[in-house]
Amino acid sequence: MVCTALVFFMHLGFSFLEIGLTRQKNTVNILFKNVFIITVGLLLYYIGGFNLMYPGFEDGDMGFLKFPGFGIGAPENGMTPEYADGGYTWWTDFLFQGMFAATAATIVSGAVAERIKLGGFMIFTIFYVGLVYPIVGAWKWGGGWLHGLGFYDFAGSTLVHSVGGWGALIAIYLLGARIGKYGEDGKPKAIPGHNLPLAAAGVLILWLGWFGFNGGSVLSADPAVTSLVLVTTCLAAAAGGVSAFVTSFVRYKNFDLTMFLNGILGGLVGITAGADQMSPNEAVIIGLIAGVIIVFGVALIDRLKLDDPVGAVAVHLICGIWGTLAVGIFGAMAGLDQFLVQLAGVGATATFCSITGFIILFTIKKIAGLRVSEQEELEGLDLHEHGMDAYADFRMNQH
Amino acid sequence: MVCTALVFFMHLGFSFLEIGLTRQKNTVNILFKNVFIITVGLLLYYIGGFNLMYPGFEDGDMGFLKFPGFGIGAPENGMTPEYADGGYTWWTDFLFQGMFAATAATIVSGAVAERIKLGGFMIFTIFYVGLVYPIVGAWKWGGGWLHGLGFYDFAGSTLVHSVGGWGALIAIYLLGARIGKYGEDGKPKAIPGHNLPLAAAGVLILWLGWFGFNGGSVLSADPAVTSLVLVTTCLAAAAGGVSAFVTSFVRYKNFDLTMFLNGILGGLVGITAGADQMSPNEAVIIGLIAGVIIVFGVALIDRLKLDDPVGAVAVHLICGIWGTLAVGIFGAMAGLDQFLVQLAGVGATATFCSITGFIILFTIKKIAGLRVSEQEELEGLDLHEHGMDAYADFRMNQH
Amino acid sequence: MVCTALVFFMHLGFSFLEIGLTRQKNTVNILFKNVFIITVGLLLYYIGGFNLMYPGFEDGDMGFLKFPGFGIGAPENGMTPEYADGGYTWWTDFLFQGMFAATAATIVSGAVAERIKLGGFMIFTIFYVGLVYPIVGAWKWGGGWLHGLGFYDFAGSTLVHSVGGWGALIAIYLLGARIGKYGEDGKPKAIPGHNLPLAAAGVLILWLGWFGFNGGSVLSADPAVTSLVLVTTCLAAAAGGVSAFVTSFVRYKNFDLTMFLNGILGGLVGITAGADQMSPNEAVIIGLIAGVIIVFGVALIDRLKLDDPVGAVAVHLICGIWGTLAVGIFGAMAGLDQFLVQLAGVGATATFCSITGFIILFTIKKIAGLRVSEQEELEGLDLHEHGMDAYADFRMNQH
Repeated sequence: MVCTALVFFMHLGFSFLEIGLTRQKNTVNILFKNVFIITVGLLLYYIGGFNLMYPGFEDGDMGFLKFPGFGIGAPENGMTPEYADGGYTWWTDFLFQGMFAATAATIVSGAVAERIKLGGFMIFTIFYVGLVYPIVGAWKWGGGWLHGLGFYDFAGSTLVHSVGGWGALIAIYLLGARIGKYGEDGKPKAIPGHNLPLAAAGVLILWLGWFGFNGGSVLSADPAVTSLVLVTTCLAAAAGGVSAFVTSFVRYKNFDLTMFLNGILGGLVGITAGADQMSPNEAVIIGLIAGVIIVFGVALIDRLKLDDPVGAVAVHLICGIWGTLAVGIFGAMAGLDQFLVQLAGVGATATFCSITGFIILFTIKKIAGLRVSEQEELEGLDLHEHGMDAYADFRMNQH
Repeated sequence: MVCTALVFFMHLGFSFLEIGLTRQKNTVNILFKNVFIITVGLLLYYIGGFNLMYPGFEDGDMGFLKFPGFGIGAPENGMTPEYADGGYTWWTDFLFQGMFAATAATIVSGAVAERIKLGGFMIFTIFYVGLVYPIVGAWKWGGGWLHGLGFYDFAGSTLVHSVGGWGALIAIYLLGARIGKYGEDGKPKAIPGHNLPLAAAGVLILWLGWFGFNGGSVLSADPAVTSLVLVTTCLAAAAGGVSAFVTSFVRYKNFDLTMFLNGILGGLVGITAGADQMSPNEAVIIGLIAGVIIVFGVALIDRLKLDDPVGAVAVHLICGIWGTLAVGIFGAMAGLDQFLVQLAGVGATATFCSITGFIILFTIKKIAGLRVSEQEELEGLDLHEHGMDAYADFRMNQH
Repeated sequence: MVCTALVFFMHLGFSFLEIGLTRQKNTVNILFKNVFIITVGLLLYYIGGFNLMYPGFEDGDMGFLKFPGFGIGAPENGMTPEYADGGYTWWTDFLFQGMFAATAATIVSGAVAERIKLGGFMIFTIFYVGLVYPIVGAWKWGGGWLHGLGFYDFAGSTLVHSVGGWGALIAIYLLGARIGKYGEDGKPKAIPGHNLPLAAAGVLILWLGWFGFNGGSVLSADPAVTSLVLVTTCLAAAAGGVSAFVTSFVRYKNFDLTMFLNGILGGLVGITAGADQMSPNEAVIIGLIAGVIIVFGVALIDRLKLDDPVGAVAVHLICGIWGTLAVGIFGAMAGLDQFLVQLAGVGATATFCSITGFIILFTIKKIAGLRVSEQEELEGLDLHEHGMDAYADFRMNQH
């Protein structure tokens, strides 16, 4: 239950990070989006998502999709008994998983910031959190076909972070870059965030939340396993941050706070799939590699003219893939067979999420439009969609 | 004990919310008030409040007021044994309740922001937290006459939120509106808050704190009941937010972040009286109604020329009453008899808190004055009472 | 494990406090330093610090220094079994202690803010967190000679706060004051902090963290002792704040938020050595005295031309000494013998930390220089070391 509270608190971390790395003129919009995701995400998960995700597949039937009905799952709805183990009640489990579910949309929110229409994003959230996320989740955590194959994803490098990451990638491809992100020469220009203290606070809050995210995923609260998981989680985070900052220092010759912060997140995402399978040394290695991936990943996304204001694709998608594959490379389960199974899980998620994400977003784009007008983008979404200013008393440099 | 930490943390939430929704020129003053409330509130509760609240009424004596002496309550001071159940120690209980006690004054703090004299507010806090709050609390939680009647208030929709709300209502009536809040035509004008990210963070922190507030009120830490309570709490919060945002969108045609946030708080206050008595569906309904109440309640307070910068009366008083009555309408205890008992509790609290609050505030007003000078109000309380600027390096638009 | 999460979260509190009390032009630098401390501190503690601190001294051998090898301590590395009691696992203990270790450097960070070279500070951190802190810690918590003498330090008034405080004192002596801190007449001038809401939030987060810091130091999680510890901790914090604000009001005739906040921290540091030995009344007295110490301590440091932007020396060093000595004056262990032993501990820490701190810092100063150039200090470290602006969209008054 404490872990559920910590995972809930991650939503403040995501909000702070996203606000901090974007411009003040879109701050109210970002806060609104994030509060929408938490509240609506939880209600959707209550109405149907939880049952879609834990549908009670028969043992070994390699299930793909099943929906036992509306309302919170209960034994008579076909929940498998393994989720009732360890003194957990259905209610706690629902709440913990519901907090996870909203995370998938939050990841997308950061990538599409500063130019997506609020209404379009809301509709996307409803379908992605309400349908796509729980269907993929059911494949493994609901006892479906990926579970049957032996796929391993401790706390969601694939099932949470990659699912969000694929949505983010598709969305920024369909949306296009923010005005001013690419110069006339086609080169990416930095659009600086307006509140780095909040961005740093966001990352520390997210790290704190990961204590709950990974710690709580040890469903039985076995103290030895939980302790190990917290150690591997923290060491990977620390290693990811240090490695990203050093890599970025070597490459760009300055002390880049944003890279440091994203490196920490990369390490956290990277360890999430195998947090209970790694020794502390292996966790450090996974984190170090994640930090390097972040620096090159961010540069790659930039060069592909995919405009991702907060680095969500590098952090959640690329490091999510890395963490999932790492289960086949390091730790207690390492082996070629496991690696191939992990690869299959990555591929299946990639296929399903890109296709469904594309369908949802492309439909919205055609029917209602995804992107705000040029004038609204330049003047800020806060003014146009909310009629509010996030910092009414402060004088601003508009840009 | 974790819950105590979370309830303590709510004070940061209240501070952020109050700062965020007011102007920068009064920020230091608000922080000072809030830090004063926490520290002095805790000391007062230690000196006498705890014993006043848990005075050890004899079973069935329908007690109204009793004070067994100074110092933290202990069995020899007449504490009833029921509060020692469930592995809780007196110390934990004291601390948990002490964190609650300060909340009553914090609610008032938000409503009177930007114009009350610091000294006057301090004196009010001492009497309201030190005497009024524990006396009302003793009626139910101390085993007094409301408890004897069968009144139910799980975690304080009435005993905490309405007590604070009545104080807030009396205080803003006696204080009058801020300069500029009502135009020459008598119509209310919005005075925008200066830091909406902090306001949103405040609400998320408060929601987190409610995990402790409601979760901790299951004194025995029974996992099944605690889980249910957290689910009903979170669903009511989510439903309150969504319903307030939709209602406000329908009425005013914009996406109002402040209404969304206050709707979440309204849902939380509304579920607090019956969090352990409601099914998840009933929690959603209570939250949905609370969200609607917020939108109309804020408009009503505004039209009555009661200037409440943060919406404290709508959130804590009106939704507190709603939540208390809802115990008689929904859930395991619903019934006409229970509804009438709930109504009696609401009425008794209204009577006692308005009268005592009025006496305290009116006395302060006559002797020392409640309101700062016009010049101080226009130039900001930070400059006059603290000689400090909350954001010394930033350039401001004064208004 | 929850306590570990709370102690981790203290690093956000330290960051917010340090940012809030300094100027915006150095904000990115401060965030970078703090994120560096957490990540590198944890890795260093993993590589060697933990084993250096818990080296498995033989019972009664009055050990001073021993290093059983690299990697997290385990029985075969010579860990004494007493640390495995109470259901704790090595992993949890490592993480909890690792979060403490980084605190020592964080304390220094605040004192040296706005003028230290980032590279120099990094090297200092590596030696101070990696070597000095665990060696002193081993004297008591590792079962070394101070433990043999009967020295008592429940959760680190000396072993954490004074160790950090001595480092801070030596560092600001070697660094010199910030440009503009002392006028031509030699009198100190206030350099106002740029974000007091973050400073206040920092203190409340630190207070929250102390729930974990002191609560978690009851290693066995005995509910009665833990409860008492939380009560003494909170009462001392409240008393420290109130006493500092009243003292400062009497002396300077204004309501000084910064003093209030530092008084709370002083009370917390003061109770830390004896949190489990004091009655609530004694905790209040210790806090009240700590609050007075803060007001006069800050003034004293200022008059000695030691420029400490956040008051770290008064809070962590002076109140740390006060708290350590208080164990000999108040509570269950009070007595002249104990007082003298406490004094010996204070003296030994003073000697060892000043000498080692001086050697490390003086060496860095001679080889690479400790202080940034005058131009860099005036224009801000953010621009020169990071090429970033913490608040890119806001208009600033540079000073």
